[in-house]
Amino acid sequence: MAKYSIGIDIGGTNTDMGLVREDGKIIARSNIPTNIYTELEPYIRDIMGCINKLMNDNNVSEIEGIGIGAPNGNFYTGCVDNAPNLTIKGVLNFEEEMHKYMQVPVVLSNDANAAAYGEMVYGGAKDLDNFIMFTLGTGVGSGIVIDGKLVHGSTGGAGELGHNILIPNGRQCSCGRKGCLETYTSARGIVQTYCELKGIQITADINSKMIGDLANQGDPTALKTWEVVADQLGLAMANSVTFSAPQAIFLMGGPTKVGEPLLKPLQKAFDKYLLNIYAGSCQIRMSELKANEVAILGAAALIKMKK
Amino acid sequence: MAKYSIGIDIGGTNTDMGLVREDGKIIARSNIPTNIYTELEPYIRDIMGCINKLMNDNNVSEIEGIGIGAPNGNFYTGCVDNAPNLTIKGVLNFEEEMHKYMQVPVVLSNDANAAAYGEMVYGGAKDLDNFIMFTLGTGVGSGIVIDGKLVHGSTGGAGELGHNILIPNGRQCSCGRKGCLETYTSARGIVQTYCELKGIQITADINSKMIGDLANQGDPTALKTWEVVADQLGLAMANSVTFSAPQAIFLMGGPTKVGEPLLKPLQKAFDKYLLNIYAGSCQIRMSELKANEVAILGAAALIKMKK
Repeated sequence: MAKYSIGIDIGGTNTDMGLVREDGKIIARSNIPTNIYTELEPYIRDIMGCINKLMNDNNVSEIEGIGIGAPNGNFYTGCVDNAPNLTIKGVLNFEEEMHKYMQVPVVLSNDANAAAYGEMVYGGAKDLDNFIMFTLGTGVGSGIVIDGKLVHGSTGGAGELGHNILIPNGRQCSCGRKGCLETYTSARGIVQTYCELKGIQITADINSKMIGDLANQGDPTALKTWEVVADQLGLAMANSVTFSAPQAIFLMGGPTKVGEPLLKPLQKAFDKYLLNIYAGSCQIRMSELKANEVAILGAAALIKMKK
Repeated sequence: MAKYSIGIDIGGTNTDMGLVREDGKIIARSNIPTNIYTELEPYIRDIMGCINKLMNDNNVSEIEGIGIGAPNGNFYTGCVDNAPNLTIKGVLNFEEEMHKYMQVPVVLSNDANAAAYGEMVYGGAKDLDNFIMFTLGTGVGSGIVIDGKLVHGSTGGAGELGHNILIPNGRQCSCGRKGCLETYTSARGIVQTYCELKGIQITADINSKMIGDLANQGDPTALKTWEVVADQLGLAMANSVTFSAPQAIFLMGGPTKVGEPLLKPLQKAFDKYLLNIYAGSCQIRMSELKANEVAILGAAALIKMKK
């Protein structure tokens, strides 16, 4: 009989849930808003109601566990620690609260770590023991797998390469410091680079998708934007290789969908910045999970991880 | 009965060997020149001769294994891979060659990895599972321990943080690229910073020890030099925390002996550059192994590592 698990993707606005079969097929989905809750108890009660319904509707009587990708999700404690973009404040013990309803393993991590683990369990990294995932979006996240294990570090907060300072005294980051990778290669960072090159003010109607479309239509400023972004991302990726010598670095997220205008100069920049002893040992690859499935699958994958 | 192991530190000029008791005491030492050999066989024959003598002289009939810290020492293969500063060229299979003489585990890694592992087995990191060692000297090396295991990565060459590009398009590095941490915080990098600040040419009679002495005598240019170096090293250390969230970062090597002029601004820089989620979670510490023992002890410690 097939085994099932639950993957939950907690965002500031919505909470998406999926019933996942062991082969990586999402059998059914459900969701509730996140930002109507200010207390953990009713939020978890409603999540568990959805999970029960997902299981009943699909004749699944048993699940292996519940995996949760959440901002500031802490693998070690089973808590979400003071996530700034959630309306429920404080240290939230998801594991304890969920165990009041169902005695199955509950595993938390942040969304980028979940994406990395999802790639290993269900995606393109099935045969890899050492790889790094960079997720490009509103922010830049990362998940690091060494010897087949996700790196959590001593605090549970390892793998924040989006906040690696790439350019000392560079752009102001929302974290309060300057020059973080995220300020250059997040969707917003890409928009900023485009507007700087174009000599125009940043406005709400310019987004990274548009700059991608322009580049694919041959717009010189847009193409130059992706070259600059590729150079910065390639440097960050090459630097990450000096840490763990991975077999591959995976990319995912909206801005990566531009394709060639990013990927071609990215490979060039990566090769240029890579220390010679690693030449040829690390591939750049795109995530093989679907954009609308990675969050659920990544979360569900977390329960395969041994504490 | 106490257990013993052999630690070997292979440098371009000398090969140092020590018989190490399990409590970390070096019972006896021996050494041979490295640079008189152009073939592996006679080199290993002479090393094994020294090892046998060390054992016989000290009534040790059995050893747990032979640990070797060597440039380009590869943990996975038991080989030294094309080390540029050795007179014996090519891929050198130490493990195979030594097994012709003695059937004990032979474990290789590079000297910075060995130093990190030595700190864990015999030094100040005995109770730590997650830490990073930076070694400052002619170059800048590093060893990374995650969940109690040394990180080797997919190639065996992980942990080369000295070649993390700290300042894009910065100083020319011997690796062919620009802006590597090593070009700023190695002994030579420190001399270069001092000479730049002083507005003088680099000469052979200026060294980092001298700049340390000057700083401790209150020389303003020397003090400024260490502040600049501390800022660069602090940034690199803070960046490394975003990778593995270690409990501590250890420092060792000649330039660190200057003390306060480096360490005080280093803590300040580290705190300034550290991402807020890690605040208070990672200490800067000095290696607790003696400078003249760390290479032997680190090498000997390697055999405690499971492949």
